[in-house]
Amino acid sequence: VLDSAYPQQVCSIARSLEVIGERWTLLILRDALLGIRRFDELVDSLGVTRTVLANRLNKLVAHDVLERNRYQQRPERFEYLPTDKALALYAVLAQLILWGDEYYPNPGGPPRLLQHRDCGGALGVEYRCRRCQSELEVADIEARPGPGASTRASRAADLRV
Amino acid sequence: VLDSAYPQQVCSIARSLEVIGERWTLLILRDALLGIRRFDELVDSLGVTRTVLANRLNKLVAHDVLERNRYQQRPERFEYLPTDKALALYAVLAQLILWGDEYYPNPGGPPRLLQHRDCGGALGVEYRCRRCQSELEVADIEARPGPGASTRASRAADLRV
Repeated sequence: VLDSAYPQQVCSIARSLEVIGERWTLLILRDALLGIRRFDELVDSLGVTRTVLANRLNKLVAHDVLERNRYQQRPERFEYLPTDKALALYAVLAQLILWGDEYYPNPGGPPRLLQHRDCGGALGVEYRCRRCQSELEVADIEARPGPGASTRASRAADLRV
Repeated sequence: VLDSAYPQQVCSIARSLEVIGERWTLLILRDALLGIRRFDELVDSLGVTRTVLANRLNKLVAHDVLERNRYQQRPERFEYLPTDKALALYAVLAQLILWGDEYYPNPGGPPRLLQHRDCGGALGVEYRCRRCQSELEVADIEARPGPGASTRASRAADLRV
């Protein structure tokens, strides 16, 4: 099912991008998480052609990121529900929102505010060490070659900042 | 400079993707953060054509995500250094690594391990409310329409999970 656009890449990011690296795909996921889940609603929201949308949705269903559900019999109509695998991408989309709002602010203000549902406080994202529990800065994180690293990756230094 | 692929989208994610939504672009950023920063090293690492690479690098420099630096005079050679704006994308790349390793595990094990530099513990990413300081689950976060929301966005419910 994977279309290996980067066959020589032994890389978790490259593997993720084979599934969700296409721009429409991430916008479809955004809409699915926002509750825009019916085919016709997605066409309206995205301004994408029906053919492109159908292709992207089929791929996401094949990868178990969305689940196809028939919500009407005659005529048949389908909606696309985010799976746990889609929810696990929430962090990626949240980070893209925060980055976009910081570096490409919308003139009218942020179109979406990520907030704590209970108290309305703004969302913050933190890095924390799972062993010693300290909060980490980017400079405290290293990306060491793991057991599945290619020779090339093992030669490269860790993520330098 | 922005090529507005999604002119009708008032969305922070869509704006971010106009800069970094292309798959090679994210892999270039990955390499730049890993310390692979010279043009010829990038060609080797990515297996991308020189023309495509040059285009992507020029765009990232124009957007102040990478800084072009001449490290040799004769012949002229350039490297591309991540700016603060690139470092702010570290969280996106880290999340893509964690997602890829969870759902598309490499048969030989993770190619990269994200670790706390000091103690070797695994990286965790947490959501925290900036007001009440509680740690948040995805279900605790809502994406409310902000001041710059389009009418359509204001109609949509918050991120439902």
